[in-house]
Amino acid sequence: MAGICKRSEDYSRWYQDVIQAAELADNSPVRGCMVIRPNGYAIWENIQRVLDAKFKELGHVNAYFPLLIPKSFLAREAEHVEGFAKECAIVTHHRLKQTEVNGKITVVPDPDSRLEEEYVIRPTSETVIWDMYRKWVQSYRDLPILINQWANVMRWEMRTRMFLRTTEFLWQEGHTAHATAAEGRAETLQMLEVYRWFAEEILAMPVIMGVKTANERFAGAVETFSIEAMMQDGKALQAATSHDLGQNFAKAFDVKYQDAEGKVEHVWATSWGLSTRVIGALIMTHSDDEGLVLPPRIAGTKCVIVPIWKNDEEMAQVCAAADGLAAQLRPAIGPAHVDRRDNMRPGWKYAEWERKGVPLRIELGPRDLAGQQVMMVARHDRRKQAVGFQQLATAAVAELDRIQQDLFDRALQRRRERTRVVDSWEAFTALFEGEGGFAECHWCGDGDCEKQVQEKTKVTIRNLPLVRDETPGRCVHCGRTSLGRVVFAQSY
Amino acid sequence: MAGICKRSEDYSRWYQDVIQAAELADNSPVRGCMVIRPNGYAIWENIQRVLDAKFKELGHVNAYFPLLIPKSFLAREAEHVEGFAKECAIVTHHRLKQTEVNGKITVVPDPDSRLEEEYVIRPTSETVIWDMYRKWVQSYRDLPILINQWANVMRWEMRTRMFLRTTEFLWQEGHTAHATAAEGRAETLQMLEVYRWFAEEILAMPVIMGVKTANERFAGAVETFSIEAMMQDGKALQAATSHDLGQNFAKAFDVKYQDAEGKVEHVWATSWGLSTRVIGALIMTHSDDEGLVLPPRIAGTKCVIVPIWKNDEEMAQVCAAADGLAAQLRPAIGPAHVDRRDNMRPGWKYAEWERKGVPLRIELGPRDLAGQQVMMVARHDRRKQAVGFQQLATAAVAELDRIQQDLFDRALQRRRERTRVVDSWEAFTALFEGEGGFAECHWCGDGDCEKQVQEKTKVTIRNLPLVRDETPGRCVHCGRTSLGRVVFAQSY
Repeated sequence: MAGICKRSEDYSRWYQDVIQAAELADNSPVRGCMVIRPNGYAIWENIQRVLDAKFKELGHVNAYFPLLIPKSFLAREAEHVEGFAKECAIVTHHRLKQTEVNGKITVVPDPDSRLEEEYVIRPTSETVIWDMYRKWVQSYRDLPILINQWANVMRWEMRTRMFLRTTEFLWQEGHTAHATAAEGRAETLQMLEVYRWFAEEILAMPVIMGVKTANERFAGAVETFSIEAMMQDGKALQAATSHDLGQNFAKAFDVKYQDAEGKVEHVWATSWGLSTRVIGALIMTHSDDEGLVLPPRIAGTKCVIVPIWKNDEEMAQVCAAADGLAAQLRPAIGPAHVDRRDNMRPGWKYAEWERKGVPLRIELGPRDLAGQQVMMVARHDRRKQAVGFQQLATAAVAELDRIQQDLFDRALQRRRERTRVVDSWEAFTALFEGEGGFAECHWCGDGDCEKQVQEKTKVTIRNLPLVRDETPGRCVHCGRTSLGRVVFAQSY
Repeated sequence: MAGICKRSEDYSRWYQDVIQAAELADNSPVRGCMVIRPNGYAIWENIQRVLDAKFKELGHVNAYFPLLIPKSFLAREAEHVEGFAKECAIVTHHRLKQTEVNGKITVVPDPDSRLEEEYVIRPTSETVIWDMYRKWVQSYRDLPILINQWANVMRWEMRTRMFLRTTEFLWQEGHTAHATAAEGRAETLQMLEVYRWFAEEILAMPVIMGVKTANERFAGAVETFSIEAMMQDGKALQAATSHDLGQNFAKAFDVKYQDAEGKVEHVWATSWGLSTRVIGALIMTHSDDEGLVLPPRIAGTKCVIVPIWKNDEEMAQVCAAADGLAAQLRPAIGPAHVDRRDNMRPGWKYAEWERKGVPLRIELGPRDLAGQQVMMVARHDRRKQAVGFQQLATAAVAELDRIQQDLFDRALQRRRERTRVVDSWEAFTALFEGEGGFAECHWCGDGDCEKQVQEKTKVTIRNLPLVRDETPGRCVHCGRTSLGRVVFAQSY
């Protein structure tokens, strides 16, 4: 078993250690790409299940578009190509040829298989999707289109970090088409709210909903909205985005519709996405020096039962009782696992399940069995309680609810403690040279000023919160007039 | 609405027309790749849901491995590279550069971003997965590994056909590692049986389980097993495969384990897959000249209710009653849809839902409402029955069961009628110049003889059925001794 570095010693190494110790992911032989191991993928499957049900509840359907995008498509939307051209994997050939080099057989791209037009592996799918929407949309009756896609995408990153920034990642990307600007904007905001709900209610991760600055806008969007969370080191992490694309892609791909009066107009678009990056946010929000901590609503296994015995007879008895309790628990709380491995001591099992972030542990030894009770232990705060067999399901449900709420409350408390109202440049630099966190500051609205702040301090504007103090003031950097406070932070 | 060509006129056009009319898929701007539209993707989601639950029931877990594979990995297993090198997309650069050509801005691969080692987009993932298994396996305690992956893969096909053969396709690929040859073989056969169960019980598609010949074996396998179905034109379609990989990949990637006695040995492997191709098989097994026919167990919408009215008052009444019936049906049968569009006549709605393959239609007009009954119509055989409101849920369940069974029986009957025992070369060529179908023939076991048959007639050996007539005889082509009959057919 790999040891876990303390957060206070090296936060970045701690993060890697938690991932290794919980077997969530592993480095791969492909530059910048990771392998998502079964424990990590189970979290992604739960994310998919919850979000997919919510999308469908709101009328969205899933579809699948090609992985490859003709390179000319990217160039159709000027800002879009600007944003993605510098980091995309390019397919140029479609055949390998065997050759001998120094007596060794090797393979090289067959020059005869050079493609006339190269493809890029999708960094995002707006272009290829809007090319299809041109075929599918003629009349207002064809609108809205509410399509989502679960897919892999690729952005050639130079500095990568498991889950947070990898060359290939998994995500969902929603792409909707609407008859009016107002409908498009309403969809953009509705999906932002879905992401807030998901982050806060399911991941127990408090977030700030807001508008990104023009500098940070998605390449091709009219307006980008985000949810921003604070990690335990005080840095911000953008956990999902929702874009109002206006008519930009409809114009680039010539997608028009005829309204009820016969008038022809370009269609209005949105796109919105959440990726495996959010697993990194989840890890960094709740985990501790013993390993992964998962909120019950997203944990694959909600509860592990560890039977304790000294001899074969006891083993048979406690294991049978554990199976019975697990069967009693499952309808109430979902997946419950009985750890009946006989080559490992209970203490080792406890530590392993703590590393892996199972929210609830139930210990059951011969004496517990005699007393018809168990010891129930919460992962995140080690709260222990003796619970009678008859009350177990009810008590487990209540305890999982308490854990979920407590994790959210702790994270919110941390964010409050580490958010400062900052009104001078001296205080600003002192904060970010010191303990960091979120700074609520006035900003003049000028992108150049924003860039200067970033160059000087590596601090960026995370977003302009939807709910914010709009008392006028003076920009924390340049002193010009500001119409409200924005959130500054260092970020992942 | 696009018309549908009759099967008897042009089977191949009929197939395309059914896909278009049901809006299952569309051609994309990417050569050989299709877009899976929401109606088609809903079928894939149901396939995933059913298979994934079955895999997990048998102890498998999901994971995710990189899309890109270092080209040298392919070359590690000699047969593997032979099998896939000629049809793979190759990534050579990681950045596009804007340039001006004749006053127009265009993008080209940036020569400075040429990769040292090229990557191929996975045609299948054995190599990258076994490279990881080397890190994960040391002792017998690490075995078995039972991992499955849902992913997109790419094989550069020259002649493509929607669902059946596309450059990119979606699939699941299971990759397991075992301590003994016997365990590996048992897993291979278990998963073959899972595919048979899925094809027959869920897709209502009878299949023949068997062993592929050495010529048709997966590149790198010791033995490949398949399930083969007969389409309505008498051609065969391989619907899934399960491979016993022996120690080939463990040797190529140096994956060894230490057993309980301390002996070190290479690990034993299997892989098994089913792809979006099976949707093509599903379409071609059951659909008719009116459009798509779907077995209830895989249909997204099980039942559509079409309310019929002449005026607003009637509309309000029948729609309310239809909603009530739908709510009553859903717990019993699953998704039921009420078609309340007011710009379309009932007859048009019937035709549309027939094209889209909804198994059951329920018609409800004012007179039906007065009599507290509906007209229930089965998609595949147009059987009509009047059913009282009180009996509707029970009757719908029974009718959906009948439809499921009937579709299977029809397909099995067709296969029986079109399967011939053929013992002479004259009869063989006459069959395949004429009506085609499956031919149960003796075969000498020689791969060259098999290839000659293919060159002369385009007919291939589909598999050596697990259950087959093993009375010795003489090869239908060369007359040499044969130890049993195999299945010959033209195939997709």
